Amino acid sequence: MKQFLVLTLFPEMIQETLSHSILGRAQKEGIISIEAINIRDFSNNKHLQVDDYPYGGGAGMVMQPQPIYDAYQSILPKAEKARVLYMTPQGKPFTQRMAEELAQEESLVFLCGHYEGVDERVIEEIVTDEISLGDFVLTGGELAAITMIDAISRLMPGVLGKEASFEEESFSHGLLEYPQYTRPPVFMEKEVPQVLLSGHHGNVEKWRREQALLRTATKRQDLLKAAELSQEDIEILKKNGIEL
Amino acid sequence: MKQFLVLTLFPEMIQETLSHSILGRAQKEGIISIEAINIRDFSNNKHLQVDDYPYGGGAGMVMQPQPIYDAYQSILPKAEKARVLYMTPQGKPFTQRMAEELAQEESLVFLCGHYEGVDERVIEEIVTDEISLGDFVLTGGELAAITMIDAISRLMPGVLGKEASFEEESFSHGLLEYPQYTRPPVFMEKEVPQVLLSGHHGNVEKWRREQALLRTATKRQDLLKAAELSQEDIEILKKNGIEL
Repeated sequence: MKQFLVLTLFPEMIQETLSHSILGRAQKEGIISIEAINIRDFSNNKHLQVDDYPYGGGAGMVMQPQPIYDAYQSILPKAEKARVLYMTPQGKPFTQRMAEELAQEESLVFLCGHYEGVDERVIEEIVTDEISLGDFVLTGGELAAITMIDAISRLMPGVLGKEASFEEESFSHGLLEYPQYTRPPVFMEKEVPQVLLSGHHGNVEKWRREQALLRTATKRQDLLKAAELSQEDIEILKKNGIEL
Repeated sequence: MKQFLVLTLFPEMIQETLSHSILGRAQKEGIISIEAINIRDFSNNKHLQVDDYPYGGGAGMVMQPQPIYDAYQSILPKAEKARVLYMTPQGKPFTQRMAEELAQEESLVFLCGHYEGVDERVIEEIVTDEISLGDFVLTGGELAAITMIDAISRLMPGVLGKEASFEEESFSHGLLEYPQYTRPPVFMEKEVPQVLLSGHHGNVEKWRREQALLRTATKRQDLLKAAELSQEDIEILKKNGIEL
């Protein structure tokens, strides 16, 4: 079983959010376990304070190093040698490749910051990886941690219904996904492309590959350049006026 | 008041996750409103089914166009002309600049997909913006929507405690943030940098700017190249052996 341990000031937010849908089921089935540790429980003052003014002045509050360090110590027995990921816009951008790599680990610890940030010394002391969800700022690290746990968990065998369902999607082949259609055959006067109703498997595959190529060419040139393309792919692009 | 309307199969997940912390308070104070609309309520069959097999075959299920379209119609009276954002890895990458732009809108509608995706025709019919949280795949669009709502909401006046607290952070100046320290002055034998205890405002500012520049140079060369740098900044970088 894969174990996620989240150090946070908002444990209910972590537990509740991940109790739904696919990840809720994966926890019930014992494929993954998600535990949120409340940093506030490790405050060593009677007001349960965990933050304080920044040295040198400035707006906002900074999370103190001691409660975080003690919260981390409390989980060490079950997460020795586990990587400790700190969610910060300063970090390495999170990608599908990183999700695949992290899916190999047995246990992962997430540290969620809040307020203006976290005292630098505890980051130096316990964090192994600084990771950014993207070039935007959130009210805290919780949503970044939850999102990464989702992206990593769904790669574990048994979490998604069928193995196949993540093999044919965006990024797995380095291309964006082809468009999908389901019933009814006509919606708002728009028909499903005829080829999908033809029952001709080879033609369906060809059409889908072409759509994936054209979409990627239109929307994400950067992905197209990095993708592994066959001679046939290059011909398809050329036929549609796209030169690499 | 800013209005977020989320079309989803997991309304509790949206409501619960956003009821905590800063966004929970912002809702209570009436600065923002977040409403989740259950797409399943608009199924027109007795099994409340909202998905079906993809035309042309393949793994997984595709969300049908009709329930989504009808769910969207139901909110039109309160969200006419509102942009409809569809969360998909195919979309334009979400950035802080996009968050700032979306924070100007009065109402925003989010469409969250699940399973293998959403019938392409309803996307063509109602969606104005396809947005990607990043180059990774999630079990559904809910976490992407929640994350974007968080990033957008915190830019609204009154959501964060002090106006200043988002002025001095990552990306606002195009640089990563300087390190933060708070009490105690010594933690795990590590001392807070002396300059921060000096009380000399000018020196603190200078040190922080230098740290922000060096961090950005080390961790995110791409941001440094795009940042607006003063002559003094360039001197600081040069002094530390960094040529632009």
